[in-house]
Amino acid sequence: MSDSSKKEITDLHTRIQKLKEDLQTSKSAKMNAEQGNAKREKITKMSAEVVDSNPYSRLMALKRMGIVDDYERIREKTIIVVGVGGVGSIVADMLTRCGAGKLILFDYDKVELANMNRLFYQPHQSGLSKVEAAKDTLIHINPDVEFETHNMNITTMENFNKFVDRIRHGSLTGGKVDLVLSCVDNFEARMTINTACNEEMQIWMESGVSENAVSGHIQFIEPGRTACFACLPPLVVAMNIDEKTLKRDGVCAASLPTTMAVVAGFLVQNTLKYLLKFGEVSMYVGYNALNDFFPKESMLANPECDDKYCRKRQKEYKERIANEKVVEKEIVIESDQITHEDNDWGIELVEESAPEIKQETRKVAEGLQLLYDPVKHVEMESAETSSPAIDLSSLMAQLKEMNK
Amino acid sequence: MSDSSKKEITDLHTRIQKLKEDLQTSKSAKMNAEQGNAKREKITKMSAEVVDSNPYSRLMALKRMGIVDDYERIREKTIIVVGVGGVGSIVADMLTRCGAGKLILFDYDKVELANMNRLFYQPHQSGLSKVEAAKDTLIHINPDVEFETHNMNITTMENFNKFVDRIRHGSLTGGKVDLVLSCVDNFEARMTINTACNEEMQIWMESGVSENAVSGHIQFIEPGRTACFACLPPLVVAMNIDEKTLKRDGVCAASLPTTMAVVAGFLVQNTLKYLLKFGEVSMYVGYNALNDFFPKESMLANPECDDKYCRKRQKEYKERIANEKVVEKEIVIESDQITHEDNDWGIELVEESAPEIKQETRKVAEGLQLLYDPVKHVEMESAETSSPAIDLSSLMAQLKEMNK
Repeated sequence: MSDSSKKEITDLHTRIQKLKEDLQTSKSAKMNAEQGNAKREKITKMSAEVVDSNPYSRLMALKRMGIVDDYERIREKTIIVVGVGGVGSIVADMLTRCGAGKLILFDYDKVELANMNRLFYQPHQSGLSKVEAAKDTLIHINPDVEFETHNMNITTMENFNKFVDRIRHGSLTGGKVDLVLSCVDNFEARMTINTACNEEMQIWMESGVSENAVSGHIQFIEPGRTACFACLPPLVVAMNIDEKTLKRDGVCAASLPTTMAVVAGFLVQNTLKYLLKFGEVSMYVGYNALNDFFPKESMLANPECDDKYCRKRQKEYKERIANEKVVEKEIVIESDQITHEDNDWGIELVEESAPEIKQETRKVAEGLQLLYDPVKHVEMESAETSSPAIDLSSLMAQLKEMNK
Repeated sequence: MSDSSKKEITDLHTRIQKLKEDLQTSKSAKMNAEQGNAKREKITKMSAEVVDSNPYSRLMALKRMGIVDDYERIREKTIIVVGVGGVGSIVADMLTRCGAGKLILFDYDKVELANMNRLFYQPHQSGLSKVEAAKDTLIHINPDVEFETHNMNITTMENFNKFVDRIRHGSLTGGKVDLVLSCVDNFEARMTINTACNEEMQIWMESGVSENAVSGHIQFIEPGRTACFACLPPLVVAMNIDEKTLKRDGVCAASLPTTMAVVAGFLVQNTLKYLLKFGEVSMYVGYNALNDFFPKESMLANPECDDKYCRKRQKEYKERIANEKVVEKEIVIESDQITHEDNDWGIELVEESAPEIKQETRKVAEGLQLLYDPVKHVEMESAETSSPAIDLSSLMAQLKEMNK
């Protein structure tokens, strides 16, 4: 071999060596860029040990603080979250970090840059389905949580059946889930959840944020005991602004990360209180951000509800109360600002015995209003304490029309 | 050159070509892994256009909804966030997504797995300084926001001066910042912020979450007008549990993502209302998660405050009121649950004229308590309406002792 050939071959070997090193460096850099995907190992048992490496130390401290008796039970719980947008994504994030056993996420929307004014999603996820984007993030935050995602609209007949099946068989042990959380932004999806939960006798919680971004609410719904979503028009926080500005067609709804995080916080707080049995589970908490006002309310099921399963659950509930002679614990938390005796707008409160509601007295507390209430103007004109009857079925029909 | 040499050289060139391709693939993969870092371009002007690609459409809709007159002004604002832990990181996240002009972040802590029960940080960030980890995430969420980070403890003399300098010169135009938000978890840091803000006549807001994770509050502080942090012991939400369990030494504090997100939501909501002039800025909002109770309160500056700058600001405030004969707008929002006339525990409310506070009547509304109040037990014994005098300077001395 000639010297020049030897030299060329040696040089080529040097170049190959250099390229190999570059490749190794590049592969390491890629791994570093992806390292988030591997860092947190699964943890078999929740520990209360106070060390920086324990992701559960601050939650297990709730036991030592006397707040929760048995925090670990969160790992047995399965929660369905319908809608992982501005509220639902934070709800799923909170439940993941709290160490819930299993989350079942439903949504059919994609992440867009227009969602970036709310927490959770990031610009690089644009175009991904929300359920997949949420799962991808959450599974690395807490690999102990089991995720099941459904990129589908639950309001079609086929998907409704799938949704009902997941309520019935979605839990970690293949049984009924523990709770359904509604974080959707439209009437039809809420009604679908309502129908399914009435059928399945499934306790659920509703959440909502107004189109002007400055009010919201959460609501606890136990079929047969509390008003379902078909019992009466949705209760929303009254805003002292011209409501007509909120309902113009084709107007893009406003949203704020603040209001959505507060509503998500209330919803998951109520979820934790319900699942882990501490504090008082709230029936309804409203939030008016403009003046930091938090109306509360509690609404009983409507015996004339359109939903036959709601009526069936009411019958069962009455029978259960009567047969078991259970003295039910008072679940009502009275509205913050009002004295019910003096309040023309007071709604009937939940009694300790089986409920008996008169439709003609169905009104709401100060700071709240039914989403649609044609009788209100009549009220305004006559300042009498006796109230005109509200035709609920007509109300609901109009509401449905409005939300088409 | 021999045929064998030619063959060897050709083979080596083939290997080099292959390695070059592998390197290119690897580099692309690294870029893909990092792609989040590049996806969202800067936007020169906030637009209200309703398209999926506009990250500001839902915020600009606040104008059309009649909530905010001039949302774009958020881009001129500079906000200092001290403490980017469980509350502060969400506060910074919200302000980033809302499109604030500039955020100045202070913290001296590192991200740990033990932080993963709160929102925002992810396991792969463990070991990074919180301010850097926060900036790295936030700058990709919204590259229009300017970030300045300080990985330091503001309570040392040198760092205090740096902190004061940033209040004075930190804004986008090199002038005074618009607001300081305190999201710290200890007394000393709060006192440091208080001292700096009194000196600089800087409006700020305080936030806090209890060690048992189920209560919190936000507070608006305008030096000279409202009570500063040295005027009287911090006002916290009263919990119906044994307080001794909260204060044991060496006990790891509990925390929940829910409570922290609610407090962060209240704080940034109040920030937006203050900076963009809509709704009513709240002086104090408490949150008791156990029963969804939200006490409100409003406290005037204490003429005998230990902080000489506070007393100076009070004098200036009185003079301003007197000289300008400004009829001040009522800023008090009354406590939700109480009738002040009948309330033995009612604190003095802010008057429309310059404040005049009698120390002996300084008590707090239902649902609230001073963090340290040795006179309370005396109160309990005598159910009279007249109240014993509270020696505030002694109280503060004891509080300082307690927090050493």
